Amino acid sequence: MYNNFVVEGEKMATEIIQHQGLELEGIYALNTWIAENRSLLAKFDSILHAISRKELERISSLKTPNSVLVVCKVPTYKMDLPTINNSLTLFLDDLQNPGNMGSILRIADWFGLPYVFCSIKCVESYNTKVIQASMGAFLRVKIITIAFEDLLEKVPNLPTFAAVLDGEDVFKTELPQNGIVIIGNEGAGVSPAIIKKASHKIRIPKGSDGGAESLNAAVATGIICAALSGH
Amino acid sequence: MYNNFVVEGEKMATEIIQHQGLELEGIYALNTWIAENRSLLAKFDSILHAISRKELERISSLKTPNSVLVVCKVPTYKMDLPTINNSLTLFLDDLQNPGNMGSILRIADWFGLPYVFCSIKCVESYNTKVIQASMGAFLRVKIITIAFEDLLEKVPNLPTFAAVLDGEDVFKTELPQNGIVIIGNEGAGVSPAIIKKASHKIRIPKGSDGGAESLNAAVATGIICAALSGH
Repeated sequence: MYNNFVVEGEKMATEIIQHQGLELEGIYALNTWIAENRSLLAKFDSILHAISRKELERISSLKTPNSVLVVCKVPTYKMDLPTINNSLTLFLDDLQNPGNMGSILRIADWFGLPYVFCSIKCVESYNTKVIQASMGAFLRVKIITIAFEDLLEKVPNLPTFAAVLDGEDVFKTELPQNGIVIIGNEGAGVSPAIIKKASHKIRIPKGSDGGAESLNAAVATGIICAALSGH
Repeated sequence: MYNNFVVEGEKMATEIIQHQGLELEGIYALNTWIAENRSLLAKFDSILHAISRKELERISSLKTPNSVLVVCKVPTYKMDLPTINNSLTLFLDDLQNPGNMGSILRIADWFGLPYVFCSIKCVESYNTKVIQASMGAFLRVKIITIAFEDLLEKVPNLPTFAAVLDGEDVFKTELPQNGIVIIGNEGAGVSPAIIKKASHKIRIPKGSDGGAESLNAAVATGIICAALSGH
């Protein structure tokens, strides 16, 4: 796990600089951008570095970097147990695709889920591709890496919903609105050991003429969050 | 628009070779794979080419190609108007990301939507990345590239649902179960000209503590299809 992560793009850089919750390590920007954002940057003189377009291109992971790149410290969040016990949250079981992880953070942010828990073997949650795909959601959703067993130990009475192909119809079953939705790995689904421990197995109903074997993990997460958010 | 497209991977190659609806132009495979799949390949002698691993690596777009690559003709589907009039279908308005397009085909396949219509400026629908992300859905879902106006001319009485941020709550509004769901471009959403022509504007309700500005296009499509498929 890295201790720092990188945020690129003017919009997201502005958002993260304005955000109070994250510790910034460095702001690397073109002189033109610095000139245009004097007031935004007022308190950050000690970590602000004016760089040339060539230098930016060298350190950027984007094909066409724009004007600014921010290096931040990976935040470590505390688990607020009353909040977790009273909310819908997600547990990602070995999710591998950074685009999916980013889309899922965006879903959590959209539906107001305060936490996303990630198993130890998930893709690095502050990976640049995750950050880009999350569209700023990582600023509002608390991401915590933790083994499922350790999470359960902290909230032993909370319902847990494993997303599987043969569970109860998530739209037709009366389910609690607080609990942890468990989303599995893209290829293997939720691991059998975790399914066994979950209090509920849920599924997204398939159309009567439906052919696909499964849905993309982020798409499935979106549908389940919509269903459990009271619809 | 290309006339051919490429399918890679043993599972999807097997599926496409068994499938009756698509015209195959060439099967390029390792000798080991050919030996193991004699009966599957019986009728395809004239287009079967045994190649070396080195040759496969050269023509493959995968980092780790496995044993077979199939070249197919892009199918041209007729529009069955009674089916379209009685089904839920999708219109993609300038969708750009091939991963999203593939996920959306998979959603259409899961919910049994027979057609996905694509605007002229959409990402090429038989692009290799789309095919990979669709997990075989392109075999069952008919993809047709057509301008929205031309589609409307053919089914003038069909309801059309533009997915926007300020429409009716898709979970709380009584909506027809047949019609065309319009999904917009990743950055710009549904274009204003098309919103004006749509018979309904729909939205996915946001959580009361929700922060994200929008959802990923494929995630939004999944939630709307689940909502309109009778839940």
